Amino acid sequence: MTLRAGVVGAAGFAGIELVRLLLAHPELTLTAVTSDALAGRPLADAYPAFRGATDLAFSAHDQADLESCDVVFLAVPHTAALAQAPGLLERGVTVVDLSADFRLKDPAVYEAWYQVPHTAPGLLAQAAFGLPELTGGELARAAAARARGEAVLVGCAGCYPTATSLAAAPAIRAGLVDPAGTVVADAVSGVTGAGKKATERTHFCFADENLEAYGVGTHRHTPEIEQILGIPGRLVFTPHLAPLNRGLLSTVNLPLDPAAPRPSADELVALYRDFYADAPLVEVLDPGTWPRTASVAGTCRAHIGVTAHPTAPMIVAVGAIDNLGKGAAGQAVQCANIVFGLPEDAGLTAVAQPV
Amino acid sequence: MTLRAGVVGAAGFAGIELVRLLLAHPELTLTAVTSDALAGRPLADAYPAFRGATDLAFSAHDQADLESCDVVFLAVPHTAALAQAPGLLERGVTVVDLSADFRLKDPAVYEAWYQVPHTAPGLLAQAAFGLPELTGGELARAAAARARGEAVLVGCAGCYPTATSLAAAPAIRAGLVDPAGTVVADAVSGVTGAGKKATERTHFCFADENLEAYGVGTHRHTPEIEQILGIPGRLVFTPHLAPLNRGLLSTVNLPLDPAAPRPSADELVALYRDFYADAPLVEVLDPGTWPRTASVAGTCRAHIGVTAHPTAPMIVAVGAIDNLGKGAAGQAVQCANIVFGLPEDAGLTAVAQPV
Amino acid sequence: MTLRAGVVGAAGFAGIELVRLLLAHPELTLTAVTSDALAGRPLADAYPAFRGATDLAFSAHDQADLESCDVVFLAVPHTAALAQAPGLLERGVTVVDLSADFRLKDPAVYEAWYQVPHTAPGLLAQAAFGLPELTGGELARAAAARARGEAVLVGCAGCYPTATSLAAAPAIRAGLVDPAGTVVADAVSGVTGAGKKATERTHFCFADENLEAYGVGTHRHTPEIEQILGIPGRLVFTPHLAPLNRGLLSTVNLPLDPAAPRPSADELVALYRDFYADAPLVEVLDPGTWPRTASVAGTCRAHIGVTAHPTAPMIVAVGAIDNLGKGAAGQAVQCANIVFGLPEDAGLTAVAQPV
Amino acid sequence: MTLRAGVVGAAGFAGIELVRLLLAHPELTLTAVTSDALAGRPLADAYPAFRGATDLAFSAHDQADLESCDVVFLAVPHTAALAQAPGLLERGVTVVDLSADFRLKDPAVYEAWYQVPHTAPGLLAQAAFGLPELTGGELARAAAARARGEAVLVGCAGCYPTATSLAAAPAIRAGLVDPAGTVVADAVSGVTGAGKKATERTHFCFADENLEAYGVGTHRHTPEIEQILGIPGRLVFTPHLAPLNRGLLSTVNLPLDPAAPRPSADELVALYRDFYADAPLVEVLDPGTWPRTASVAGTCRAHIGVTAHPTAPMIVAVGAIDNLGKGAAGQAVQCANIVFGLPEDAGLTAVAQPV
Repeated sequence: MTLRAGVVGAAGFAGIELVRLLLAHPELTLTAVTSDALAGRPLADAYPAFRGATDLAFSAHDQADLESCDVVFLAVPHTAALAQAPGLLERGVTVVDLSADFRLKDPAVYEAWYQVPHTAPGLLAQAAFGLPELTGGELARAAAARARGEAVLVGCAGCYPTATSLAAAPAIRAGLVDPAGTVVADAVSGVTGAGKKATERTHFCFADENLEAYGVGTHRHTPEIEQILGIPGRLVFTPHLAPLNRGLLSTVNLPLDPAAPRPSADELVALYRDFYADAPLVEVLDPGTWPRTASVAGTCRAHIGVTAHPTAPMIVAVGAIDNLGKGAAGQAVQCANIVFGLPEDAGLTAVAQPV
Repeated sequence: MTLRAGVVGAAGFAGIELVRLLLAHPELTLTAVTSDALAGRPLADAYPAFRGATDLAFSAHDQADLESCDVVFLAVPHTAALAQAPGLLERGVTVVDLSADFRLKDPAVYEAWYQVPHTAPGLLAQAAFGLPELTGGELARAAAARARGEAVLVGCAGCYPTATSLAAAPAIRAGLVDPAGTVVADAVSGVTGAGKKATERTHFCFADENLEAYGVGTHRHTPEIEQILGIPGRLVFTPHLAPLNRGLLSTVNLPLDPAAPRPSADELVALYRDFYADAPLVEVLDPGTWPRTASVAGTCRAHIGVTAHPTAPMIVAVGAIDNLGKGAAGQAVQCANIVFGLPEDAGLTAVAQPV
Repeated sequence: MTLRAGVVGAAGFAGIELVRLLLAHPELTLTAVTSDALAGRPLADAYPAFRGATDLAFSAHDQADLESCDVVFLAVPHTAALAQAPGLLERGVTVVDLSADFRLKDPAVYEAWYQVPHTAPGLLAQAAFGLPELTGGELARAAAARARGEAVLVGCAGCYPTATSLAAAPAIRAGLVDPAGTVVADAVSGVTGAGKKATERTHFCFADENLEAYGVGTHRHTPEIEQILGIPGRLVFTPHLAPLNRGLLSTVNLPLDPAAPRPSADELVALYRDFYADAPLVEVLDPGTWPRTASVAGTCRAHIGVTAHPTAPMIVAVGAIDNLGKGAAGQAVQCANIVFGLPEDAGLTAVAQPV
Repeated sequence: MTLRAGVVGAAGFAGIELVRLLLAHPELTLTAVTSDALAGRPLADAYPAFRGATDLAFSAHDQADLESCDVVFLAVPHTAALAQAPGLLERGVTVVDLSADFRLKDPAVYEAWYQVPHTAPGLLAQAAFGLPELTGGELARAAAARARGEAVLVGCAGCYPTATSLAAAPAIRAGLVDPAGTVVADAVSGVTGAGKKATERTHFCFADENLEAYGVGTHRHTPEIEQILGIPGRLVFTPHLAPLNRGLLSTVNLPLDPAAPRPSADELVALYRDFYADAPLVEVLDPGTWPRTASVAGTCRAHIGVTAHPTAPMIVAVGAIDNLGKGAAGQAVQCANIVFGLPEDAGLTAVAQPV
């Protein structure tokens, strides 16, 4: 038995990375690859990397093709998933959504940050949040429902929330962090995070040899991180852009709970390793060692380093992922694996190019 | 049955890429990974990409471990392979050498270009040249010998010769090229081609945002390309360095034989496609389309574009490879596959990251 | 006395580099900076590098402002210069054009390559070609006319023609090159050469970590190089794109005249140094040394290396420039300097950032 | 009158940038350029950017040459300045030191962080701290002493301290920041910040396409920033490395004083602009606008953005500089300008390349 999978929005960066992963997946078979803009063109026309490897072509959005899938991945902008998910679910198709439409549990928060109405609050209530190492319970329930024959909906975490939350959650959940304190996350992303649209910001000549902050205090991933970590209104999140294609590093500063004993770096590493003991795709580095995004590029893996600051009452944790891998397409596949009862890392065991 | 494989010099760039490929190979099992400099250290210490994926450690050069292999890959500097290959072959171990020691058929040419004596001319005479799409006969004979139980030796082509020869050979072998003319190949490589040694040349701050030519008229790949293409003394080859990690593009200018009819771009593409009809890892692009190294990065694939110049009597062919993939480690695995009777592209079907 | 200068099309890459150079020029004062798209916005809005350094704003194309200039630089697409130059010249304004409209001496060649009619063949006949080291006579005549009070027109060389011709001309003019042979120039450019327009090709994620050839046999700089070097129909020119902002390297392969004695590298370097003895912005490197584009980035300088191939009958010359500097804005200023009787390198003596 | 200047350690990255700036300085004349490693070689041998622009050669460290200077810049590792400054000062030579030796007011702090004895605590007590926008008083006193004929010593701020402190100081000095709170500064640097030494860390192939944190909680710039800002033991500083040559961005998170009224972004920008009203090289960007390092690359300028976080009690300020410009060589020249009574920005008015 293999499962039939479709990708909607396959011409975008997350979509085409999904295609790459699914073509090599041992249990999922890609049967529908849609792009309105590129309909009819072979994948290899737009992305020559596929030349010689597949004859698949982009198709127009064809509901019938999609409805014959076991699972459809929505790699579309927000609001588009709101429009498409309900119909697929009604026909019994499991939906793994990479957009922001089914991430924020409270539709009012969604509406405040995205400035559009949430048209499917009922589905939102049922959706599992897709960040497996931190929302295993939700995904397990979804897997159980799927096993009963129900179509399920997963709203996958965004890229910044993934790296930031993986770095922060073990300390917070262990009660080490001041419940009244402000968490500061400064994160840096490669340019694939800005998407495929050609703009001045993604122009090589403006992005190359440049570092910049953006969206200070206003980035839409803020409420999502706050939700995952349970720190509403207590996050200062600043994203940055750096001149590389893939990679996302989040440095998270967590104020120590004055009531908790000050941990050593060794203790923190031990705590984190225990937390991620069953997570095949997360590695906690040795004390004093810090992650490199290049070491996880092209993969669904995450590397984390953590220490306690020597003078200030602060835990510093750093998470590295590939924004298109663990931060998008890889994570979506990981969620699908779980929902369909496959090994969590099926099709995701590749190692980054060492150089 | 799986075959036991070893990598000597595994800490270098070609060596560690071999390790990455072999860890995912369906038929070869990596059992020995040697590095004198890093002996005893886990792979993941030097290359954190392997963290969580393998517990393998570098070992010191251990002859016994290597002798228990079915095949040993030598990813060592020239002269080191001369020293190591004979002993392995004597013990029945097939050797796939990535150095220059067994490439040049004429030991005198080797000695002239490398300025050291060739200490194993007998082995050289037996060695198969490893560029499968162009030296299939030699490799087939090696495979036959291997099938009879003999250990065989393959001297794999270098990175520039691979891209350049794949682009040039179909036209030359079809008799389209002036047998008295000079072939001009201008090739550009990413910095992994300069090796792992930290020097001023490989320093980020000197390589970044820079283009340069080097070794004009003196690069050691010159005689190798001339040998493959059968154009002794008729090659002007200029390598260049550009600011990227992986990727090698060779633009080859082939003077038309005045006696041959002038081909159209369509005819050339058809000729090339016919030439590579049985080559699963080589793609010839549509007329007017030119290869991008990013589309083959991290893979053993080659993309080729070709046309006839509209005014001058010249064929222009462009070949793109990953210098560490099809230009080194991937090609070595491809050669091993052939020698052991496996599908040529076993373990080599990965597609480049589309972005 | 300072001279009043205007830049039309100042928001583009060549235009804004002109602005940068002119703001620091000792004798030219920038009085008009036009951009239809950005009219009314301060330079610093679009290019924050100017913040704190100038209060200048882009203006709409205002004929009166421009007509009050002594010299106007046209940094516009081809055909736009055809439209604008005549009016300015009629009002006595000297025009330095960076577009292709006044480069090709033969309007029929222009029309064949650009597929539009040339509407000012009379002006074309008067225009001086702006590549000072090679067209000093034309520019000297223009300077003399200017000194008599006439407005003059300069059509500046393109970026690829500049690097390629500087590398090739001394050998060709010395009679060393086979008059029936084909010259092969393979050149690599940074992405600023592709212009400011945001396209898939200039998207960071497609240009980064990639090498590609383009326009093989069809690039519009081909007839311009042939004209400068006097080699009609005998040039095979292949441009390439590499992942850096600024920098252009042209490797030129010149077939030796069978009748000429074979020169040594030392002789060639001596010949080239003699040729460029009076050129303050061109450096010929020592034999065996090859230019780096980083060493001329941000400047109007050119570095050249040259040798004779050891086996093949070929001279190999390599020229490095900044495509926006010596290849565009710097060269335009150099031409204006000459026309107005200023030192050739006035405002152009800056040195590249050493790292 | 021009002043004679020398650079010790001119072959390093900060040293050679000093050479570039001083060669174009209107009032300082470079008369001694020392490098023990490159003594006797022309600048242009090691840094071809200087070819055609200067005939200067590196000299061995020659005390006599240096003693004839009015000012000597020490671009040497820490401890080397401790060894060299006293003798120069005794001979009446003003010393501008770029190392860490004269930055930390308390020798015990120096000894704790650098693990070497401070051998010149008396000089340290006299040294002016060189970050002109924040230590104008110290530099004014040094200028007055210099005007009286005394040799003076300036210990220039480091690169991270410069960007971080320029971003943080106006808010702190205005009393907006919680005096018991922890300041979090996450900063990202280009690779020139790691110095000229070729190591695995500065190897192109490890730095390219990679982001990493390093020295978390242990970087030696920590006490320097704490000293400048007057926040001992209250700084969490994490430096990061990104794949670009020049550029340093520091994002500083400043906890609001609970007793102070919450400022708006407009108020903060007004406060910052007032603070830097007399600083010709610092620009405070409009509210909602964030600095780009590319806009200050190659210059001594700094760009700053600032806002108050919408939900958390935090000011976020971002400073962008060129780590070799305002972060090292440019700042040293700026300090010398002040000490010698020149315009603060003499020789430092260049604008970054707009692309």
